[in-house]
Amino acid sequence: MTAAQPLRIGLAGLGTVGGGVLRLLDENEALVARRAGRSLQVTAVSARDRSRERGVDLSGLAWEDDATALARRNDVDLVVELIGGADGPALTLARSTIKAGRPLVTANKAMLAHHGAELAEMAETAGVPLRFEAAVAGAIPIVKGLSEGAAANRIARVSGILNGTCNYILSAMEREGRDFAEVLGEAQRLGFAEADPGFDIDGIDAAHKLALLASLAFGTTPDFASVETGGIRAVRLADIEQARALGFRVRLVGVAELVSGRMLQQVRPVLVSEGHPLAGVKGALNAIVLEGNHCGRLVFEGAGAGAGPTASAVVSDCIAIARGERAPPLAMPLADLEVAERGNPDERRGRHYLRLTVADRPGVLAELAATLRDCGVSIESLIQPAATEDRPALVAIVTHNGPEGAVRAAVAAMRALSVVLEPPFMMPIMGDEE
Amino acid sequence: MTAAQPLRIGLAGLGTVGGGVLRLLDENEALVARRAGRSLQVTAVSARDRSRERGVDLSGLAWEDDATALARRNDVDLVVELIGGADGPALTLARSTIKAGRPLVTANKAMLAHHGAELAEMAETAGVPLRFEAAVAGAIPIVKGLSEGAAANRIARVSGILNGTCNYILSAMEREGRDFAEVLGEAQRLGFAEADPGFDIDGIDAAHKLALLASLAFGTTPDFASVETGGIRAVRLADIEQARALGFRVRLVGVAELVSGRMLQQVRPVLVSEGHPLAGVKGALNAIVLEGNHCGRLVFEGAGAGAGPTASAVVSDCIAIARGERAPPLAMPLADLEVAERGNPDERRGRHYLRLTVADRPGVLAELAATLRDCGVSIESLIQPAATEDRPALVAIVTHNGPEGAVRAAVAAMRALSVVLEPPFMMPIMGDEE
Repeated sequence: MTAAQPLRIGLAGLGTVGGGVLRLLDENEALVARRAGRSLQVTAVSARDRSRERGVDLSGLAWEDDATALARRNDVDLVVELIGGADGPALTLARSTIKAGRPLVTANKAMLAHHGAELAEMAETAGVPLRFEAAVAGAIPIVKGLSEGAAANRIARVSGILNGTCNYILSAMEREGRDFAEVLGEAQRLGFAEADPGFDIDGIDAAHKLALLASLAFGTTPDFASVETGGIRAVRLADIEQARALGFRVRLVGVAELVSGRMLQQVRPVLVSEGHPLAGVKGALNAIVLEGNHCGRLVFEGAGAGAGPTASAVVSDCIAIARGERAPPLAMPLADLEVAERGNPDERRGRHYLRLTVADRPGVLAELAATLRDCGVSIESLIQPAATEDRPALVAIVTHNGPEGAVRAAVAAMRALSVVLEPPFMMPIMGDEE
Repeated sequence: MTAAQPLRIGLAGLGTVGGGVLRLLDENEALVARRAGRSLQVTAVSARDRSRERGVDLSGLAWEDDATALARRNDVDLVVELIGGADGPALTLARSTIKAGRPLVTANKAMLAHHGAELAEMAETAGVPLRFEAAVAGAIPIVKGLSEGAAANRIARVSGILNGTCNYILSAMEREGRDFAEVLGEAQRLGFAEADPGFDIDGIDAAHKLALLASLAFGTTPDFASVETGGIRAVRLADIEQARALGFRVRLVGVAELVSGRMLQQVRPVLVSEGHPLAGVKGALNAIVLEGNHCGRLVFEGAGAGAGPTASAVVSDCIAIARGERAPPLAMPLADLEVAERGNPDERRGRHYLRLTVADRPGVLAELAATLRDCGVSIESLIQPAATEDRPALVAIVTHNGPEGAVRAAVAAMRALSVVLEPPFMMPIMGDEE
């Protein structure tokens, strides 16, 4: 064991993940010291409520009511920010830490999606490390995977299941044949979903993570504002059943890819072919697929949230800093990052799934088919399951490969048809090799 | 773009991978420079045959007939060793490079499995980086995944499909219902298997890689001599069919795990439950599963061989060195590595599959069952497919969870029975959660 000075950590935020970091550093103390070349030691902490019982021993640790004070303490070499939120105390602490010339490790995807470029620039100017492995997909080392593992490659696309709550809900709907609202209610009772679930189920959390992955994959500044974000509220059991019958699973997938040389970022429910690695991702797991021009397709899967997995990623960053690693926060110097032009989703090509709720009378299919033809969309298959008492007449359509713009135009045109009773619902399709 | 000096590379070995490295550096030149903070430039090369047509442009590159000369050239900052072989010119070059104080990047699993501790010690003493991402599982960043991504975790087990040739053969047997010899012959004609295939199909190549993964996972010096190595020659189509009927796939899996606190390393054909991530790994792909005490189960999948994927890993190492990263070769200083005690396979617990070729007469099952009982092995299921003209009477048995030692004893005892016509064949079983 090296006799180097311990790396002293100020830990802000003592929720699930903060507690997990303390437990990990306690349980794996000797191992972490061997890997880091020095011991990692939390010296000071900060959280909102000092009296709360957390099941971890805080004795011997200095307490700061104001997290920002951690950045200025003489017994803190590195700050771990686990407060959360794009702005407010987390951002204040991040800025103060970097300004004080101290390395920052954060799990805060929202803050980085919104202020990543600013913080990276501050860190570069100050010459201090800023690392965020835990901000994307929990324990999965995908920040390192993109910035280091696949660093030699031109990346064509990065796709991922980036929100465990959504994947839990979609998996449960699929497995148990239950409706979205019912499964969401249960997930909330069991603590898998927040009381206010919008952040997860409307795709915002996944969009934060996708903006970071896209930045690393394409060498651009994070551009959260350009992520086209959709969630899973509109997914019905009927969609999952139709998808199943056609050989697909429904997953909330974030995709960042180059379309006509411009960066397109989309988070939305997708029909994933059963042979695709993302189709097999069950429950609350996360997975990321990246495609590089020499490495080919790489797949990473693991726990995307939770105390242990997130702490694992936080501490791996602390170890890298303790070892003296000084990689640029966004994998390359700020001056080398490009500002991505926003891709046009209409130009993206692929197969698409459409679900239509229609009047139960003859001639409906002819009207739909004519509308699709007029928009230049060709039909690969069409299923019209028999209407039941609970369920009005549905039509599920899979299109041939073609531009998304034509499908969007067809959706708008069909929406105006009197035989179409609800707004049509569209999901892109990912084939085995995508 | 930074105006730093280019990193000048001496490249030894111009086979498939060497050509791939030259092509990657040519195609992705600007991108690699952005990620590395400086340009990467091959200045000198060495290979056995100067006149061979390689489809890459060698003009402007210095040529050395003796690879060792690369280590001493004034225009070489870093040597990439792609010669291959545990000893001989590769080892001479590796030693010379490190002695000359120059960083070494190698894809040579055999050399590292045999001489990894010595080379890591030399590199540590000389204070030069030694990196080998390409030595294990091609493009998959599993060396970084273990040394950095999961660095905070106590690893309980690392398992992997580490040889693409074996996985190609087993997948083809499964998909096409053909016998081992037939598929191997075809793989040789197509160039997926070597004319002398023993290195791959007897598990030696996978064992080299497993020894490196085990070293990184458990913080021990590589111990190739302790790897229990078996291959796929004994796997029959009948095994694959029985496995399928029972809900398993047959895969050649390397497993390193702690058994009673000691390190057990085994490469052999395994029945993998269909719900396990390794069961879905098709064709020539590789995959690794690791289980850490905080990160949980992480899965990595991708191309394990080939020009592009291997070059991707080689160049990622060069980029890390260009950036100034100085991680210890075996993830921690030599002084912190432990010498692993060798685990006893008899103590490993699990379910097991047994295939027996038996005499086609009454009373055989009673004899087998009595032998298993006497050895303390309990039977979970037993299938006796009807004998056909092509195939003698077979019995496939799945045991309950128990020590491997009892199963080995039963195999030895059954081998002595007159009703057992061939040596029994045993494969361990990996369940969904293993």
